[in-house]
Amino acid sequence: MVEKVNHPYYPRSLKLPHFKANDKDITELLSVFFSIVGIFIVVTWLVTGRAARKPLSLTRRLVVCWFVACGFIHTVLEGYFGYFHATLAGQMDFLAQLWKEYGKGDSRYISSDTFTVCMERITAIIDGPLAFLSAWAFLANSKHRYVLQLLLSLCQLYGDSLYFLTAIFEGFIHGEYLHPLYFWFYFVFLNSLWIIIPLLLIIDSYRHLSRCQAVFDSNASGKNKKLH
Amino acid sequence: MVEKVNHPYYPRSLKLPHFKANDKDITELLSVFFSIVGIFIVVTWLVTGRAARKPLSLTRRLVVCWFVACGFIHTVLEGYFGYFHATLAGQMDFLAQLWKEYGKGDSRYISSDTFTVCMERITAIIDGPLAFLSAWAFLANSKHRYVLQLLLSLCQLYGDSLYFLTAIFEGFIHGEYLHPLYFWFYFVFLNSLWIIIPLLLIIDSYRHLSRCQAVFDSNASGKNKKLH
Repeated sequence: MVEKVNHPYYPRSLKLPHFKANDKDITELLSVFFSIVGIFIVVTWLVTGRAARKPLSLTRRLVVCWFVACGFIHTVLEGYFGYFHATLAGQMDFLAQLWKEYGKGDSRYISSDTFTVCMERITAIIDGPLAFLSAWAFLANSKHRYVLQLLLSLCQLYGDSLYFLTAIFEGFIHGEYLHPLYFWFYFVFLNSLWIIIPLLLIIDSYRHLSRCQAVFDSNASGKNKKLH
Repeated sequence: MVEKVNHPYYPRSLKLPHFKANDKDITELLSVFFSIVGIFIVVTWLVTGRAARKPLSLTRRLVVCWFVACGFIHTVLEGYFGYFHATLAGQMDFLAQLWKEYGKGDSRYISSDTFTVCMERITAIIDGPLAFLSAWAFLANSKHRYVLQLLLSLCQLYGDSLYFLTAIFEGFIHGEYLHPLYFWFYFVFLNSLWIIIPLLLIIDSYRHLSRCQAVFDSNASGKNKKLH
Protein backbone atom coordinates (compact mmCIF):
# COMPACT_ATOMS: atom_id res chain seq x y z
CA MET A 1 0.00 0.00 0.00
CA VAL A 2 1.38 3.44 -0.92
CA GLU A 3 1.13 5.78 2.03
CA LYS A 4 -0.47 9.16 1.27
CA VAL A 5 1.93 12.03 1.86
CA ASN A 6 0.24 14.87 3.82
CA HIS A 7 2.61 17.68 2.75
CA PRO A 8 4.02 19.30 -0.43
CA TYR A 9 7.74 18.99 0.51
CA TYR A 10 10.73 17.12 -0.87
CA PRO A 11 12.05 14.52 -0.45
CA ARG A 12 8.57 12.97 -0.58
CA SER A 13 9.62 10.47 2.11
CA LEU A 14 9.88 13.32 4.67
CA LYS A 15 7.72 12.63 7.75
CA LEU A 16 5.86 15.72 9.00
CA PRO A 17 2.97 14.45 11.13
CA HIS A 18 2.33 17.93 12.60
CA PHE A 19 2.05 19.65 9.20
CA LYS A 20 -1.02 21.83 8.54
CA ALA A 21 -1.64 23.26 5.05
CA ASN A 22 -1.62 27.05 4.60
CA ASP A 23 -4.95 28.87 4.37
CA LYS A 24 -3.45 32.07 2.95
CA ASP A 25 -2.62 31.97 -0.73
CA ILE A 26 0.79 32.63 -2.21
CA THR A 27 -0.19 36.04 -3.71
CA GLU A 28 -1.21 37.33 -0.29
CA LEU A 29 1.91 35.94 1.43
CA LEU A 30 4.41 37.29 -1.08
CA SER A 31 2.71 40.65 -1.71
CA VAL A 32 2.43 41.45 2.02
CA PHE A 33 6.03 40.39 2.66
CA PHE A 34 7.59 42.23 -0.29
CA SER A 35 5.43 45.30 0.45
CA ILE A 36 6.79 45.52 3.98
CA VAL A 37 10.36 45.15 2.69
CA GLY A 38 9.49 47.81 0.08
CA ILE A 39 8.24 50.22 2.77
CA PHE A 40 11.50 49.77 4.72
CA ILE A 41 13.48 50.55 1.57
CA VAL A 42 11.41 53.63 0.61
CA VAL A 43 11.52 55.08 4.14
CA THR A 44 15.27 54.48 4.34
CA TRP A 45 15.74 56.09 0.93
CA LEU A 46 13.93 59.21 2.12
CA VAL A 47 15.81 59.29 5.43
CA THR A 48 19.22 58.91 3.75
CA GLY A 49 18.42 61.95 1.57
CA ARG A 50 18.00 64.16 4.64
CA ALA A 51 19.46 62.70 7.83
CA ALA A 52 23.00 61.78 6.74
CA ARG A 53 25.74 63.66 8.56
CA LYS A 54 27.53 64.13 5.22
CA PRO A 55 25.59 63.90 1.92
CA LEU A 56 25.60 60.32 0.60
CA SER A 57 25.93 59.35 -3.07
CA LEU A 58 22.96 57.63 -4.73
CA THR A 59 24.79 54.28 -4.69
CA ARG A 60 25.60 54.68 -1.01
CA ARG A 61 21.96 55.50 -0.24
CA LEU A 62 20.93 52.29 -2.02
CA VAL A 63 23.49 50.34 0.03
CA VAL A 64 22.03 51.77 3.26
CA CYS A 65 18.56 50.68 2.03
CA TRP A 66 20.02 47.20 1.53
CA PHE A 67 21.36 47.19 5.11
CA VAL A 68 17.98 48.17 6.55
CA ALA A 69 16.10 45.60 4.43
CA CYS A 70 18.63 42.95 5.58
CA GLY A 71 18.27 44.06 9.20
CA PHE A 72 14.51 43.57 8.99
CA ILE A 73 14.68 40.23 7.17
CA HIS A 74 17.46 38.82 9.40
CA THR A 75 15.96 39.78 12.74
CA VAL A 76 12.22 39.31 12.08
CA LEU A 77 11.88 36.63 9.39
CA GLU A 78 15.00 34.60 10.07
CA GLY A 79 14.79 35.23 13.82
CA TYR A 80 11.27 33.78 13.72
CA PHE A 81 12.56 30.67 12.00
CA GLY A 82 15.49 30.28 14.41
CA TYR A 83 13.04 30.33 17.32
CA PHE A 84 10.00 28.42 15.96
CA HIS A 85 11.64 25.96 13.52
CA ALA A 86 10.46 22.89 15.42
CA THR A 87 6.74 23.71 15.42
CA LEU A 88 6.48 25.94 12.34
CA ALA A 89 5.05 23.25 10.04
CA GLY A 90 1.91 23.11 12.19
CA GLN A 91 1.51 26.86 12.82
CA MET A 92 -0.92 29.14 10.96
CA ASP A 93 0.37 32.66 11.73
CA PHE A 94 1.63 34.83 8.88
CA LEU A 95 5.38 34.20 9.26
CA ALA A 96 4.87 30.45 9.66
CA GLN A 97 2.78 30.39 6.48
CA LEU A 98 5.50 32.37 4.69
CA TRP A 99 8.14 29.82 5.74
CA LYS A 100 5.84 26.94 4.77
CA GLU A 101 5.56 28.51 1.32
CA TYR A 102 9.33 29.07 1.05
CA GLY A 103 9.93 25.51 2.27
CA LYS A 104 8.58 24.22 -1.05
CA GLY A 105 11.93 25.36 -2.43
CA ASP A 106 13.93 24.01 0.52
CA SER A 107 12.33 21.67 3.04
CA ARG A 108 15.25 22.08 5.44
CA TYR A 109 13.22 25.01 6.81
CA ILE A 110 10.33 22.67 7.58
CA SER A 111 12.30 19.72 8.94
CA SER A 112 14.56 21.62 11.42
CA ASP A 113 17.74 20.72 9.54
CA THR A 114 20.67 21.16 11.94
CA PHE A 115 22.87 23.34 9.72
CA THR A 116 19.96 25.50 8.56
CA VAL A 117 18.73 26.23 12.10
CA CYS A 118 22.23 27.06 13.41
CA MET A 119 23.13 29.24 10.42
CA GLU A 120 19.82 31.12 10.61
CA ARG A 121 20.30 31.73 14.33
CA ILE A 122 23.72 33.30 13.65
CA THR A 123 22.11 35.35 10.87
CA ALA A 124 19.35 36.60 13.17
CA ILE A 125 21.50 37.29 16.23
CA ILE A 126 24.72 38.55 14.61
CA ASP A 127 23.96 39.67 11.02
CA GLY A 128 20.65 41.38 11.90
CA PRO A 129 22.08 43.85 14.45
CA LEU A 130 25.22 44.27 12.30
CA ALA A 131 23.01 45.32 9.36
CA PHE A 132 21.23 48.04 11.37
CA LEU A 133 24.58 49.16 12.84
CA SER A 134 26.05 49.41 9.32
CA ALA A 135 23.13 51.58 8.18
CA TRP A 136 23.58 53.84 11.20
CA ALA A 137 27.37 54.00 10.67
CA PHE A 138 27.01 55.38 7.13
CA LEU A 139 24.34 57.87 8.18
CA ALA A 140 26.56 59.06 11.04
CA ASN A 141 29.72 59.01 8.88
CA SER A 142 31.24 56.86 11.66
CA LYS A 143 34.84 55.67 11.43
CA HIS A 144 33.46 52.13 11.83
CA ARG A 145 31.32 52.23 8.68
CA TYR A 146 33.45 50.24 6.22
CA VAL A 147 34.61 47.74 8.83
CA LEU A 148 30.99 47.06 9.83
CA GLN A 149 30.04 46.68 6.16
CA LEU A 150 32.87 44.15 5.79
CA LEU A 151 31.93 42.15 8.91
CA LEU A 152 28.25 42.02 7.93
CA SER A 153 28.85 41.15 4.28
CA LEU A 154 31.38 38.41 5.05
CA CYS A 155 29.01 36.80 7.58
CA GLN A 156 26.23 36.89 4.97
CA LEU A 157 28.47 35.52 2.23
CA TYR A 158 29.85 32.71 4.40
CA GLY A 159 26.41 31.62 5.65
CA ASP A 160 24.80 31.74 2.22
CA SER A 161 27.73 29.98 0.51
CA LEU A 162 27.41 27.11 2.98
CA TYR A 163 23.65 27.15 2.40
CA PHE A 164 24.15 26.55 -1.33
CA LEU A 165 27.11 24.16 -0.91
CA THR A 166 25.27 21.87 1.53
CA ALA A 167 22.24 21.75 -0.82
CA ILE A 168 24.48 20.89 -3.79
CA PHE A 169 26.39 18.27 -1.73
CA GLU A 170 23.10 16.51 -0.93
CA GLY A 171 22.01 16.66 -4.59
CA PHE A 172 19.18 19.23 -4.30
CA ILE A 173 16.92 16.68 -2.60
CA HIS A 174 15.10 19.27 -0.45
CA GLY A 175 12.97 20.83 -3.18
CA GLU A 176 11.46 20.16 -6.59
CA TYR A 177 14.56 20.39 -8.76
CA LEU A 178 14.34 23.02 -11.55
CA HIS A 179 10.79 24.09 -10.61
CA PRO A 180 10.44 27.65 -11.99
CA LEU A 181 9.04 29.23 -8.80
CA TYR A 182 10.30 27.01 -5.97
CA PHE A 183 13.74 26.16 -7.29
CA TRP A 184 14.67 29.10 -9.53
CA PHE A 185 12.92 31.98 -7.76
CA TYR A 186 12.81 31.02 -4.06
CA PHE A 187 15.94 28.93 -3.78
CA VAL A 188 18.33 30.21 -6.47
CA PHE A 189 17.33 33.82 -7.18
CA LEU A 190 16.47 35.08 -3.68
CA ASN A 191 19.53 33.50 -2.08
CA SER A 192 21.82 34.67 -4.89
CA LEU A 193 21.16 38.23 -3.75
CA TRP A 194 23.03 37.40 -0.51
CA ILE A 195 25.98 36.08 -2.52
CA ILE A 196 26.29 38.84 -5.13
CA ILE A 197 25.61 41.97 -3.06
CA PRO A 198 27.79 40.97 -0.08
CA LEU A 199 30.59 40.03 -2.50
CA LEU A 200 30.44 43.49 -4.11
CA LEU A 201 30.35 45.17 -0.68
CA ILE A 202 33.32 43.09 0.56
CA ILE A 203 35.35 44.22 -2.48
CA ASP A 204 34.22 47.80 -1.83
CA SER A 205 35.25 47.65 1.86
CA TYR A 206 38.50 45.84 1.05
CA ARG A 207 39.61 48.50 -1.43
CA HIS A 208 38.48 51.36 0.74
CA LEU A 209 40.09 50.08 3.96
CA SER A 210 43.36 49.24 2.20
CA ARG A 211 43.44 52.81 0.89
CA CYS A 212 42.86 54.12 4.44
CA GLN A 213 45.71 51.90 5.65
CA ALA A 214 48.01 53.30 2.95
CA VAL A 215 47.18 56.88 4.02
CA PHE A 216 47.69 55.92 7.67
CA ASP A 217 51.06 54.29 6.88
CA SER A 218 52.30 57.25 4.87
CA ASN A 219 51.23 59.64 7.68
CA ALA A 220 53.04 57.39 10.18
CA SER A 221 56.22 57.17 8.12
CA GLY A 222 56.04 60.94 7.65
CA LYS A 223 56.14 61.19 11.42
CA ASN A 224 58.88 58.52 11.48
CA LYS A 225 56.87 56.39 13.88
CA LYS A 226 56.68 52.60 14.10
CA LEU A 227 52.91 52.05 13.94
CA HIS A 228 52.37 48.87 11.97
CA MET B 1 21.24 -10.81 18.50
CA VAL B 2 23.41 -7.75 19.22
CA GLU B 3 25.44 -6.86 16.14
CA LYS B 4 29.14 -6.33 16.80
CA VAL B 5 30.22 -2.76 15.98
CA ASN B 6 33.44 -2.74 13.93
CA HIS B 7 34.54 0.83 14.80
CA PRO B 8 35.21 3.07 17.82
CA TYR B 9 32.88 5.95 16.79
CA TYR B 10 29.72 7.51 18.20
CA PRO B 11 26.81 7.17 17.86
CA ARG B 12 27.43 3.40 18.20
CA SER B 13 24.69 2.80 15.61
CA LEU B 14 26.85 4.44 12.89
CA LYS B 15 27.36 2.09 9.92
CA LEU B 16 30.92 2.15 8.56
CA PRO B 17 31.38 -1.09 6.59
CA HIS B 18 34.59 0.19 4.94
CA PHE B 19 36.28 1.09 8.26
CA LYS B 20 39.80 -0.25 8.88
CA ALA B 21 41.45 0.18 12.31
CA ASN B 22 44.62 2.30 12.55
CA ASP B 23 47.98 0.49 12.77
CA LYS B 24 49.87 3.60 13.96
CA ASP B 25 49.44 4.43 17.62
CA ILE B 26 48.17 7.73 18.95
CA THR B 27 51.60 8.84 20.28
CA GLU B 28 53.14 8.51 16.83
CA LEU B 29 50.22 10.27 15.09
CA LEU B 30 50.05 13.23 17.47
CA SER B 31 53.81 13.68 17.94
CA VAL B 32 54.52 13.68 14.19
CA PHE B 33 51.64 16.08 13.49
CA PHE B 34 52.41 18.54 16.30
CA SER B 35 56.15 18.37 15.47
CA ILE B 36 55.47 19.44 11.87
CA VAL B 37 53.24 22.29 13.09
CA GLY B 38 56.02 23.16 15.57
CA ILE B 39 58.64 23.28 12.79
CA PHE B 40 56.42 25.65 10.76
CA ILE B 41 56.09 27.90 13.81
CA VAL B 42 59.84 27.91 14.66
CA VAL B 43 60.89 28.60 11.05
CA THR B 44 58.33 31.40 10.77
CA TRP B 45 59.53 32.84 14.08
CA LEU B 46 63.09 32.97 12.75
CA VAL B 47 62.03 34.41 9.40
CA THR B 48 59.90 37.16 11.00
CA GLY B 49 62.93 38.24 13.02
CA ARG B 50 64.92 38.92 9.83
CA ALA B 51 62.80 39.19 6.70
CA ALA B 52 60.13 41.71 7.74
CA ARG B 53 60.17 44.95 5.75
CA LYS B 54 59.67 46.85 9.01
CA PRO B 55 60.66 45.29 12.37
CA LEU B 56 57.70 43.42 13.89
CA SER B 57 56.81 43.38 17.58
CA LEU B 58 57.03 40.06 19.43
CA THR B 59 53.23 39.76 19.52
CA ARG B 60 53.00 40.44 15.81
CA ARG B 61 55.65 37.80 15.09
CA LEU B 62 53.58 35.29 17.08
CA VAL B 63 50.50 36.26 15.06
CA VAL B 64 52.40 35.64 11.81
CA CYS B 65 53.42 32.21 13.19
CA TRP B 66 49.73 31.57 13.86
CA PHE B 67 48.88 32.48 10.24
CA VAL B 68 51.50 30.10 8.84
CA ALA B 69 50.44 27.25 11.16
CA CYS B 70 46.82 27.86 10.09
CA GLY B 71 47.81 27.95 6.41
CA PHE B 72 49.48 24.56 6.75
CA ILE B 73 46.65 22.97 8.77
CA HIS B 74 43.87 24.40 6.54
CA THR B 75 45.39 23.48 3.19
CA VAL B 76 47.07 20.15 3.99
CA LEU B 77 45.11 18.54 6.84
CA GLU B 78 41.67 20.01 6.18
CA GLY B 79 42.20 19.98 2.40
CA TYR B 80 42.93 16.24 2.67
CA PHE B 81 39.66 15.72 4.54
CA GLY B 82 37.67 17.81 2.06
CA TYR B 83 38.96 15.64 -0.77
CA PHE B 84 39.07 12.14 0.78
CA HIS B 85 36.19 12.32 3.31
CA ALA B 86 34.20 9.54 1.62
CA THR B 87 36.93 6.87 1.69
CA LEU B 88 39.02 8.04 4.63
CA ALA B 89 37.62 5.49 7.13
CA GLY B 90 39.16 2.67 5.07
CA GLN B 91 42.50 4.35 4.26
CA MET B 92 45.80 3.66 6.05
CA ASP B 93 48.00 6.62 5.05
CA PHE B 94 49.23 9.01 7.74
CA LEU B 95 46.64 11.79 7.29
CA ALA B 96 43.75 9.29 7.11
CA GLN B 97 44.95 7.69 10.35
CA LEU B 98 45.18 11.15 11.94
CA TRP B 99 41.58 11.89 10.96
CA LYS B 100 40.45 8.47 12.16
CA GLU B 101 42.03 9.28 15.53
CA TYR B 102 40.43 12.76 15.65
CA GLY B 103 37.08 11.24 14.61
CA LYS B 104 36.84 9.60 18.03
CA GLY B 105 36.01 13.11 19.26
CA ASP B 106 33.71 13.88 16.32
CA SER B 107 32.53 11.13 13.98
CA ARG B 108 31.21 13.67 11.48
CA TYR B 109 34.73 13.49 10.01
CA ILE B 110 34.33 9.76 9.46
CA SER B 111 30.73 9.70 8.21
CA SER B 112 31.02 12.50 5.57
CA ASP B 113 28.58 14.77 7.40
CA THR B 114 27.29 17.34 4.88
CA PHE B 115 27.96 20.48 6.91
CA THR B 116 31.40 19.29 8.04
CA VAL B 117 32.57 18.47 4.49
CA CYS B 118 31.31 21.77 3.04
CA MET B 119 32.72 23.88 5.89
CA GLU B 120 36.11 22.13 5.67
CA ARG B 121 36.24 22.66 1.91
CA ILE B 122 35.71 26.41 2.40
CA THR B 123 38.38 26.33 5.12
CA ALA B 124 40.88 24.57 2.84
CA ILE B 125 40.18 26.59 -0.33
CA ILE B 126 39.52 30.06 1.13
CA ASP B 127 40.96 30.23 4.67
CA GLY B 128 44.19 28.34 3.79
CA PRO B 129 45.41 30.75 1.08
CA LEU B 130 44.11 33.73 3.11
CA ALA B 131 46.27 32.60 6.04
CA PHE B 132 49.46 32.49 3.93
CA LEU B 133 48.52 35.82 2.32
CA SER B 134 48.04 37.38 5.76
CA ALA B 135 51.48 36.17 6.86
CA TRP B 136 53.04 37.64 3.71
CA ALA B 137 51.11 40.91 4.13
CA PHE B 138 52.57 41.55 7.59
CA LEU B 139 56.08 40.62 6.49
CA ALA B 140 55.78 42.97 3.50
CA ASN B 141 54.08 45.70 5.56
CA SER B 142 51.37 45.65 2.87
CA LYS B 143 48.42 48.03 3.06
CA HIS B 144 46.19 44.93 2.89
CA ARG B 145 47.53 43.36 6.10
CA TYR B 146 44.78 44.20 8.60
CA VAL B 147 41.97 43.65 6.09
CA LEU B 148 43.35 40.20 5.25
CA GLN B 149 43.66 39.40 8.96
CA LEU B 150 40.01 40.41 9.39
CA LEU B 151 38.76 38.36 6.42
CA LEU B 152 40.69 35.25 7.52
CA SER B 153 39.74 35.51 11.18
CA LEU B 154 36.05 36.08 10.49
CA CYS B 155 35.92 33.07 8.12
CA GLN B 156 37.61 30.94 10.80
CA LEU B 157 35.31 32.22 13.56
CA TYR B 158 32.13 31.72 11.50
CA GLY B 159 33.06 28.19 10.41
CA ASP B 160 34.15 27.09 13.87
CA SER B 161 31.13 28.67 15.60
CA LEU B 162 28.83 26.71 13.30
CA TYR B 163 30.94 23.61 13.98
CA PHE B 164 30.28 23.91 17.73
CA LEU B 165 26.64 25.06 17.35
CA THR B 166 25.66 22.14 15.11
CA ALA B 167 27.29 19.67 17.53
CA ILE B 168 25.45 21.24 20.49
CA PHE B 169 22.16 21.29 18.52
CA GLU B 170 22.45 17.54 17.92
CA GLY B 171 23.28 16.92 21.60
CA PHE B 172 26.99 15.92 21.24
CA ILE B 173 26.03 12.55 19.76
CA HIS B 174 29.12 12.31 17.52
CA GLY B 175 31.68 11.53 20.23
CA GLU B 176 32.04 10.09 23.71
CA TYR B 177 30.60 12.94 25.78
CA LEU B 178 33.01 14.34 28.42
CA HIS B 179 35.83 11.90 27.52
CA PRO B 180 39.04 13.64 28.70
CA LEU B 181 41.02 13.13 25.48
CA TYR B 182 38.38 12.82 22.74
CA PHE B 183 35.83 15.33 23.99
CA TRP B 184 37.85 17.81 26.04
CA PHE B 185 41.15 17.84 24.16
CA TYR B 186 40.31 17.01 20.51
CA PHE B 187 36.83 18.47 20.28
CA VAL B 188 36.68 21.32 22.82
CA PHE B 189 40.26 22.50 23.34
CA LEU B 190 41.69 22.27 19.83
CA ASN B 191 38.64 23.87 18.22
CA SER B 192 38.45 26.58 20.89
CA LEU B 193 41.75 27.92 19.56
CA TRP B 194 39.93 28.85 16.33
CA ILE B 195 37.28 30.71 18.32
CA ILE B 196 39.49 32.61 20.77
CA ILE B 197 42.43 33.64 18.56
CA PRO B 198 40.29 34.77 15.56
CA LEU B 199 38.05 36.72 17.94
CA LEU B 200 41.08 38.57 19.37
CA LEU B 201 42.43 39.23 15.86
CA ILE B 202 39.03 40.50 14.65
CA ILE B 203 38.96 42.98 17.55
CA ASP B 204 42.56 43.96 16.74
CA SER B 205 41.74 44.53 13.04
CA TYR B 206 38.49 46.31 13.84
CA ARG B 207 40.18 48.81 16.16
CA HIS B 208 43.13 49.31 13.85
CA LEU B 209 41.08 49.79 10.66
CA SER B 210 38.63 52.16 12.37
CA ARG B 211 41.62 54.22 13.48
CA CYS B 212 42.93 54.28 9.88
CA GLN B 213 39.48 55.39 8.71
CA ALA B 214 39.49 58.22 11.25
CA VAL B 215 42.91 59.41 10.01
CA PHE B 216 41.71 59.13 6.40
CA ASP B 217 38.53 61.11 7.19
CA SER B 218 40.39 63.86 9.00
CA ASN B 219 42.89 64.12 6.10
CA ALA B 220 39.98 64.28 3.66
CA SER B 221 38.10 66.92 5.64
CA GLY B 222 41.37 68.84 5.92
CA LYS B 223 41.47 68.88 2.14
CA ASN B 224 37.73 69.74 2.13
CA LYS B 225 37.00 66.76 -0.11
CA LYS B 226 33.91 64.54 -0.07
CA LEU B 227 35.48 61.09 0.17
CA HIS B 228 33.13 59.01 2.31
